[in-house]
Amino acid sequence: MNRAVQVDDAPAPHGAGAFLQAGNRRHLLGLDGVPRESLLDLLASAARYRDKLRTPRWISEELRGIAICNAFFEDSTRTRVSFELAEQRLGAIHTTFIASGSSLSKGETMLDTLRVLTSMRVDLVVVRHRSSGSPAFLARHLGAGIINAGDGEHEHPTQGLLDLLTLSDAWNGRFEGRRFGIVGDITHSRVARSAIFGLNTLGAEVVIAGPPTLIPAEAESLGCTVVPTVEEAMRGADGVMALRIQRERMEGGLLATLGEYARLWGLTRERIAQMRPGAVVLHPGPMNRGVEIAPDVADGSESRVLKQVENGLAVRCAVLARSAAALGEVS
Amino acid sequence: MNRAVQVDDAPAPHGAGAFLQAGNRRHLLGLDGVPRESLLDLLASAARYRDKLRTPRWISEELRGIAICNAFFEDSTRTRVSFELAEQRLGAIHTTFIASGSSLSKGETMLDTLRVLTSMRVDLVVVRHRSSGSPAFLARHLGAGIINAGDGEHEHPTQGLLDLLTLSDAWNGRFEGRRFGIVGDITHSRVARSAIFGLNTLGAEVVIAGPPTLIPAEAESLGCTVVPTVEEAMRGADGVMALRIQRERMEGGLLATLGEYARLWGLTRERIAQMRPGAVVLHPGPMNRGVEIAPDVADGSESRVLKQVENGLAVRCAVLARSAAALGEVS
Amino acid sequence: MNRAVQVDDAPAPHGAGAFLQAGNRRHLLGLDGVPRESLLDLLASAARYRDKLRTPRWISEELRGIAICNAFFEDSTRTRVSFELAEQRLGAIHTTFIASGSSLSKGETMLDTLRVLTSMRVDLVVVRHRSSGSPAFLARHLGAGIINAGDGEHEHPTQGLLDLLTLSDAWNGRFEGRRFGIVGDITHSRVARSAIFGLNTLGAEVVIAGPPTLIPAEAESLGCTVVPTVEEAMRGADGVMALRIQRERMEGGLLATLGEYARLWGLTRERIAQMRPGAVVLHPGPMNRGVEIAPDVADGSESRVLKQVENGLAVRCAVLARSAAALGEVS
Repeated sequence: MNRAVQVDDAPAPHGAGAFLQAGNRRHLLGLDGVPRESLLDLLASAARYRDKLRTPRWISEELRGIAICNAFFEDSTRTRVSFELAEQRLGAIHTTFIASGSSLSKGETMLDTLRVLTSMRVDLVVVRHRSSGSPAFLARHLGAGIINAGDGEHEHPTQGLLDLLTLSDAWNGRFEGRRFGIVGDITHSRVARSAIFGLNTLGAEVVIAGPPTLIPAEAESLGCTVVPTVEEAMRGADGVMALRIQRERMEGGLLATLGEYARLWGLTRERIAQMRPGAVVLHPGPMNRGVEIAPDVADGSESRVLKQVENGLAVRCAVLARSAAALGEVS
Repeated sequence: MNRAVQVDDAPAPHGAGAFLQAGNRRHLLGLDGVPRESLLDLLASAARYRDKLRTPRWISEELRGIAICNAFFEDSTRTRVSFELAEQRLGAIHTTFIASGSSLSKGETMLDTLRVLTSMRVDLVVVRHRSSGSPAFLARHLGAGIINAGDGEHEHPTQGLLDLLTLSDAWNGRFEGRRFGIVGDITHSRVARSAIFGLNTLGAEVVIAGPPTLIPAEAESLGCTVVPTVEEAMRGADGVMALRIQRERMEGGLLATLGEYARLWGLTRERIAQMRPGAVVLHPGPMNRGVEIAPDVADGSESRVLKQVENGLAVRCAVLARSAAALGEVS
Repeated sequence: MNRAVQVDDAPAPHGAGAFLQAGNRRHLLGLDGVPRESLLDLLASAARYRDKLRTPRWISEELRGIAICNAFFEDSTRTRVSFELAEQRLGAIHTTFIASGSSLSKGETMLDTLRVLTSMRVDLVVVRHRSSGSPAFLARHLGAGIINAGDGEHEHPTQGLLDLLTLSDAWNGRFEGRRFGIVGDITHSRVARSAIFGLNTLGAEVVIAGPPTLIPAEAESLGCTVVPTVEEAMRGADGVMALRIQRERMEGGLLATLGEYARLWGLTRERIAQMRPGAVVLHPGPMNRGVEIAPDVADGSESRVLKQVENGLAVRCAVLARSAAALGEVS
């Protein structure tokens, strides 16, 4: 069973990224299938934007006249604000649309809503939606460039890229031979999926661990190794990412108490000490301190949580610039 | 009885547009009473903006330094986003205020709220409010230019203009001798009223049809002909607009089921086939597919629904530019 | 008891302003402790911005490339819109974050949320929060400049400055020997506190009056005189401010009915007639007309309510410009 496809006539997610990337660089639908060279180009571009963004008062006119609609059918403060700031740093026109209170509550379909928005001369749509595959679906039906800002349990490619950039910094740009652990609810995590696809493409090994109810049956087919304990995910790793625990999983019976989760799967100082020297700790945020990550790990020297956020802004600049540059290309 | 006036001391709506237009072009309160030449000027200006907006990355500094407040006392994604994008394309400063969560919940009056906003050096206020006549009321009490983005059951003049522009395209700019049908809940529709006023001024004939409970008693005095069936509204028409059915009308007992509505009044392929060759189908959106409009009509070759949206952006550019240009004039 | 400190490890509020101002001018945490010269500089700067803002289409590039996050953990239309318009008039990048629907509902702390936002290269944070002392807390933990837009029952310094500017206009810039009355719920009013601190520093006398349940025990230590009736607060005053009555105080048993409040404490024409010739009436808004202020006083010739709003925009320009200019300074 492929959990990632829920929108009717959406493509199989494996290879969908690659197919659409190859056909048209104005979209970023996922990291699955994106070639190594494209990933490295995006990371290099993001690193250059990061340098510029560190210059006080840096601003550009690179996206002047480009109109971007941030269409968030689920709200997300940090991703939305990161895109909004990237859009303004690059000089774009932007408008944000959050689904609550929108036409959707009047019974309109997502596709009708977005057709309307793109008819208003919107060039790029940054879309977050709970349905896996919806950005790919939109890319086939709309003329605008589509940037996936998180779709259901499928992918969150700009998050994946910022994880890759953070690890590239920690690992001096060398992914081959690296081992990276991901701990938590892998089944429902688009963050994990995008990271796994990207790390695999760049040659790193990914090891996953978490409550058996939250490890997908097809995990190995994603290109990673399942280990039974958090300790094994740490041992010899060059980095680890704790996923955010969602409280609604407990109501669904997939998870016991938060305390038990912390005891079995939480990142603690003792556990992260089993990683290799120089290994780093990532978390996509927002963190449940004391649950999936201990406060002294969240704030410790290994933590790259705020670096991830800074890199996220740079990655979004790079992705927006790439999409805008491709708008004139034949699709 | 005149349903359109509910705000105390608001003017009679008939002629109000004309009176205030003549006095001061910085407002757009309605299409009722706007002279033919002014309508044609606005349509010509909108057509020029549409050409510019089709140029990739087009942007202007025409409204540089003009501050616009989008004051939505009822939310409306598409109208709000259309104004926001027009404001940015023209280089204006803009801020959006949606009433939920605002001072209004603290008991402040609409007039106090807008006096406060205009004291912050706001030049133009785009206002949507459930009270008919409220934009005219504001125009008498505030120094800013007022653009009506929909007031109660009174008018929605930028929607009316975008309908006119869409029909002008379909009809090669000739309105005389044309026949246009409007089907649905005419009584509660500001969209219908603005379209009727504009079409009458430009010389087209308007025929309306809908459930008898939703046809206003004074319909004929608006300058249109009431016909008893949707078929009669179509026969020989050069275009038709389906109005959106609002579910709350059913709770109020004014309407039977959605299924019955669709059967009696919905636009179907068979029905629209009774129009003249080249006739077009309009809908103000968001559409209830399968209720007031069949999906194959919504997506058919006669449909101008997305053209309406594109024209809406152009119309808003034209209206904002006209109001801004008039700011310096003596009122 | 010091009511103003509720966030753990926040500084004592008295002197906190001064301490942090001296150390770093990129923050504006409160008016308490701000030296006379700094206050006068800010007022003079605000007056210059007011002149510029009165020029049609005035806009500046002074904050070009500066990114500002308006973080409203409580919403406030007028303060938020005033900051947003000031930011755009000065050419800044800006993003607004309102807590409902944000990560906070996912259990993240305010500090984590703001660390994330400032990691996105945000230079200045305008923050409103229900916890007194939270801006000072943030100023110690974040690199960005912090501008307090109202914290609990502590301070609302840009409101205090706009009150001072309004009084400076009415009093020809001379505060010494002036007497100013504040009427209402002093205990819970950050507006009153900021005004009292500023007026004291500039040499005016402050007299307060209100229901005994709403006058703080330590009132005299704030540097003002408590009088038992509204009439005494008016007699010989050069100005008066009515505070907004919050209906939730009645539920808490601190206040009787609105009618009784109006009868005992409301500003009426008879009462304000007891002030000196030329005396002015202020209100922070939104007004409860007929409760703390009679409609004919709200709209009367003594009222400076809309001047306060206009001055608020100018003050926010001055404060933002001051903070931005200090970003490069050593902290």
